[in-house]
Parts: sequence; structure tokens; C-alpha cells
Amino acid sequence: MKIGVLGAGQLGRMLALAGYPLANQFTFLDTTGHPSAGIGDVMIDTDHKHLEAFLSQVDLVTYEFEHLPVALVQDIESEKPVYPSSEAIRICQNRAEEKALFDRLSIPTPAYRLVDSAEALEQAARELGTPVVAKSITEGYDGKGQAVLRDPSEATEAWQRINHPRLIVESFVDFVREVSIIAVRGRDGQVVFYPMAENVHVDGILRYSLAPMPDLDDAVQHTADGYIRALLDELDYVGVLTLELFQCADGSLLANEMAPRVHNSGHWSMDGAVTSQFENHLRAIQGLPLGDTSARMPTCMINVIGREADPAAVLAIEDAHLHRYDKSERAGRKLGHINLLAPTHEALLEKVRACATLVPDAPAPRFSFEGKGK
Amino acid sequence: MKIGVLGAGQLGRMLALAGYPLANQFTFLDTTGHPSAGIGDVMIDTDHKHLEAFLSQVDLVTYEFEHLPVALVQDIESEKPVYPSSEAIRICQNRAEEKALFDRLSIPTPAYRLVDSAEALEQAARELGTPVVAKSITEGYDGKGQAVLRDPSEATEAWQRINHPRLIVESFVDFVREVSIIAVRGRDGQVVFYPMAENVHVDGILRYSLAPMPDLDDAVQHTADGYIRALLDELDYVGVLTLELFQCADGSLLANEMAPRVHNSGHWSMDGAVTSQFENHLRAIQGLPLGDTSARMPTCMINVIGREADPAAVLAIEDAHLHRYDKSERAGRKLGHINLLAPTHEALLEKVRACATLVPDAPAPRFSFEGKGK
Repeated sequence: MKIGVLGAGQLGRMLALAGYPLANQFTFLDTTGHPSAGIGDVMIDTDHKHLEAFLSQVDLVTYEFEHLPVALVQDIESEKPVYPSSEAIRICQNRAEEKALFDRLSIPTPAYRLVDSAEALEQAARELGTPVVAKSITEGYDGKGQAVLRDPSEATEAWQRINHPRLIVESFVDFVREVSIIAVRGRDGQVVFYPMAENVHVDGILRYSLAPMPDLDDAVQHTADGYIRALLDELDYVGVLTLELFQCADGSLLANEMAPRVHNSGHWSMDGAVTSQFENHLRAIQGLPLGDTSARMPTCMINVIGREADPAAVLAIEDAHLHRYDKSERAGRKLGHINLLAPTHEALLEKVRACATLVPDAPAPRFSFEGKGK
Repeated sequence: MKIGVLGAGQLGRMLALAGYPLANQFTFLDTTGHPSAGIGDVMIDTDHKHLEAFLSQVDLVTYEFEHLPVALVQDIESEKPVYPSSEAIRICQNRAEEKALFDRLSIPTPAYRLVDSAEALEQAARELGTPVVAKSITEGYDGKGQAVLRDPSEATEAWQRINHPRLIVESFVDFVREVSIIAVRGRDGQVVFYPMAENVHVDGILRYSLAPMPDLDDAVQHTADGYIRALLDELDYVGVLTLELFQCADGSLLANEMAPRVHNSGHWSMDGAVTSQFENHLRAIQGLPLGDTSARMPTCMINVIGREADPAAVLAIEDAHLHRYDKSERAGRKLGHINLLAPTHEALLEKVRACATLVPDAPAPRFSFEGKGK
């Protein structure tokens, strides 16, 4: 099976590493001119002339990046199967569409308004009560195109800084932690769910994901499962879908956003789950049975950003698994991640703290369950 | 780190899959004209003109196949580091040298004689007592170049069939099971040992490996660890070494042969151990700390030979991990393997039996510990 991937970054690279053992072959279509997959057949298509050649090489198409022109993906769909479908892309790349879908499926979200002027932004901030978060409805990745308003009077400056014609304004949720649920839907409609992860972001960039959470009520996992299943079924979705949520003090969940792809908050599954998110995505899009999503052990992922960690020091930690993306160092760039496994959460936290000292600029690891005696 | 691999088959492929996450890049030198790695940069060198180009691309050299001209590997050593060294190749590709090394290190072997004529073969068979196994002292892979003599009178026919100028003749050991020990030695002399595996061969070809064994005395593992450590230290070896042994009814071990590389009987470690043999080989040759060799769970590997197993049926088994080599079907050809994990050996055997029915021509799985009530 020859799989075409739109995008050629680290997610595509890890898809390929999971797919070779399934006898898959990979062709990547890169439109940035800076592919980093470093594996498979990479076609650079900055001049938009290679799509036909790409399609002629592949049996089906998937993507590692959802900020693709919808019309392009629809064109591809007329020639080859695309999983997940262009409809998932259309919705996920537009926060207004995404929120409307959440509303339609009764998936709770922070209160929000859509605004198309600085004045409307100011009024929304008044209605919702500051602080609020304003985000462009399109694009936006890792915290870009966003602003926090601590007072309605900051609307004009925020509007100019974000510089987009339409924004979504959301209540600033008083959450206990950020979490995500990753699920996989097969071509036959079978759905499997990974244990939810607790995610620690700094400046909108993921630094840590930990799964399973030691203090998560089964009922909360089931609620999240229900939300993501509704999304998967509504979209007749095939592949891995990620839903990021806020968990509030009363345990309730508010949907933040979704990503129609394998996700950084699921990288722990490469070593910590029976079947990784990458393999399960490939199983799904090929119509193969989905694999067990159970965690083998408590697992924490640490992102390596900007500067490399010393591989020898990291690999000296027992049950540490290094995943480098083979990219050059640059401030803010995701260069790799480390998965740490331990038999208990207590032992895991100790290991995470030791490992964090080896990762340049890693924030001190703090998880919501610490000090709860669990 | 750019790693050059001599040989471009499935072992090289799996090395590369383990090495990409360490930011390794791979160049394979294939002298057969039929590379199957399907990954990395493959240089076909059937005309022996590409060695310099190959060496100019790589930082160090390893190999996935020990039947290489020793002089070639010595030449390479004068330009780039080669791990394991040419001395390991020299010894492993000559059964007489190998047995002499075992003798020198007091590693017990079946009684043997070296012969260089049909007459000497007949006499050796008489002295050792039939049945005996006669093997060419060089080459030989997966049972080729071997003959079993049930009577000394079969010497002439066996001599002609094997058709090599020098043979080793061994007593036919009345073993309980075939086992192997895999160990890894770092550049700094650190050594780690995998749990021993029980191996089931049919016609000299490995079909099943199971590790850890439920009924293995710790003392036997320690004995095997001692044997392989002696070999590693004697050869100042760097990388993965495999030692195949016979285990007799009294528990004692007799060395059969060794392979200076990752080995089919260690493929279980890809899913069943904390660190796979492939990753540990790469860690060793790069001077990185070696990873934990513990088994996560009882694991059994089933080889897929000649014809493919239906991937959908295999992947429907819980905790089954498919590793296809993406080769075309051909009688006797290793096409892939399946790793099965289960929390108990009893559950594992049940799973192995179910999976074996999906693998074309797989023999019924029979392990020595079955029916022992363990």
C-alpha cells in the first residue's frame, strides 16, 4: 500500500516509521520548501506542479497538517481516497465552523462570540467578562494568532496585532488542567479511544503530556469518549482525531479545539500504549482492524524544543525513549520528544523531574494531580 | 550520525527503523543486486566500484550479514570505524575458528571433528557415533550446507552433497530445546543481556522464538550470560552478539554457533523488551548508554516465510505486532514476523496457536515447557 502524505514534517516521519512494518510505502508532498521528514519519497511542490505526479504514485492520501486549501483536498478526493475527508479539514481550519459543530453536537465549550471589528471585539469582551481570549478563526498553530484581553479597552490593540478579518472571542476558562482525548475511527465505523492525557503548555506550546492520569474519574473519560465519538460519527471520520479540552474544578470538560490528525499530545503512545496513534491512524485509513489503545504503563512525554538534549544523558535514564526529528536547532522549533515510562506515577514524576533538567529550557514539570496523594 | 550498513536486507531495514528516532541516517551497501531494505539510501555495488563513495557518506560502518570478505572489512576498518570488528567476522564465518574460540574460553560444545575428505568424514562419524551433523566450515545460513549422517556409510554421499573442502562433524546432541542468548557490548565495555529465548526450527529455519522462558532456572541464564560475556570481552566486541545453544535434559548448555549481529531470535525484543536489539546495537556502536533489556511481558515471535499472512486477520489479535519486510513471496523466503504479547505464558500459548493458523505453512507451535504445569 502506497500512502501519500500532504506535509513532510515530523508527524509524517513518525507515520512512516510506524507504517514500514505494515509494508506501507510513503510519498510526501511538501509545499513549504522545507521538508523535514527525512524518510520516504519527498516531493517538493512549491510551484504547485507536482500534484498529478504525487497522486499517480499513491493508493490513498492522508495528511499531517490541516491548514491546506480545502479546494485542493476536494480535488484530490475526486482522484484518490483521502482520509480523513476534506470536510474534517474544512471544519478544523475554521474555529467558527468548529464551534458550531461542537454546539450542534452538544459538546460544551467556553462561552464565545464571533466578531469582525475592533468595536465588536470590545463589546464581546464586555459581554463575556474579561479576561477573554481572541483568536483568528482561521489558521493559528501552537498559539500563534491569539491574544489575551485583560480589559475591553485592549480590543483595538489586540485586533491590530492579530490582524485577521474575523475573530472568535472566548471566555478565559478557569480550568484545573488542559487535557486531550485521542480516538481512532476505522473505515467500518469501529472507534477506539486512548486514555486521556494531561497536557502542560507554555506560551501555547506543548511541553509535557502525561497519560493515563492517576486521578481521572472513569466518568470523565467516558464523557470525553462520548464527545469525540459524536464528532467522529458526525463527520464519518476515518483516522485519528484529537480533541483538546479544559477540565474545570468540578471535573467537567469544555472543548477547546480539535485536530484532524495524529497529535503531539498522543506521542506518549509510541512507547506507552499497546498500539501507537501513528500505527492506528495507518490501520484505520487502510481498513485494517484497530489496535489496542491501552497504556502499558504511566507515561510522560517531554517535548524537546529549540535546542537538543544530550542523547547520552537522556538514554542513560531507564525506560527513556528518545524520538529525534533530525532537524537543525532553532528557537521554538520542535526537535524531538522523550517518552518516559515507569510502573507508578510517583516513580514517573521523579523520572520526569530528572529528565527535565536535561532538556534545554524545559519548564519545571507541574501536573494537576501532584500533592493529591494519589 | 550517518551509519553505513553492509548488506541491505530486512535486518538492515529494522536497524534503520530503530535508528531514525536517534537521528541516525542510513546508507546500505548491497553486493547482491537484490536489496530489500526499502528504506534509507541503498547503493548497489555488484561491480565493486562503489565502496569509496559509500565510505565517504558514512561516519561508521556496521553490517547485517557476516559472510563478507574479511579483507574487504579490514580495508574498511583502515578508513572508518567498523563495529563489530573484522575479527568477529573472521571467526564467525569459519566454524573451525568459532569452535576453537569456544574451546579456548571453556564454552562447552557438542563433540566435533574437522575433516577434509569423505574418508575422514566416515571415520569421524564412527568415532563420534551416529547420528552426526556435518557442516561446511564456511558459509552456511539457515541450514544450508549441512547434512545429517545416520550411519558412517552415508559419508561419501554427504561429502558430495555438501561439496566443500573442509567440514566440521558434530555429535547429534540429544537436546531438550534450542535456545539463544543475545547480549550487547558498548564501546566502553558495558555488557547487557537479553532474557534467553527458546527457538523452534524446522529444516534449519527459525519458525518461533519465545522469551522469557517460563521454566528457565536463573542459574542457566547466568551460565549463558557468562559464556557470551567471555566471547564479547575476548573479541573486544561492540554491538549485538548472538549465541545459539542447545539445552540438554540436565539443564546444561552446549554452544552451537554465534552470529555477530542482530538476530532473528531477538526480533521478539522489538515489542517485548524495553529496548529492542536493534536500538541497542545502534546505541552500542555510537557509544551511547545501553538500554534496558528486560522483557515487558512474555512474548513470542512467529516468522512469516514464503507466503504472507493476511494482515487484517493478524492485526485483529490483541497485542499482535506485525513486521513486514515488504518483499515478494517466494518459497523459503523470510517475509516478515509477528510478535505476540500476553500477560501469562498460558495466555501467550493460546494466542500463538490462534495466530499460527493464520501463517501459511507455519508448523504447529510446540515449546519444551508445555504440559509442565508452569
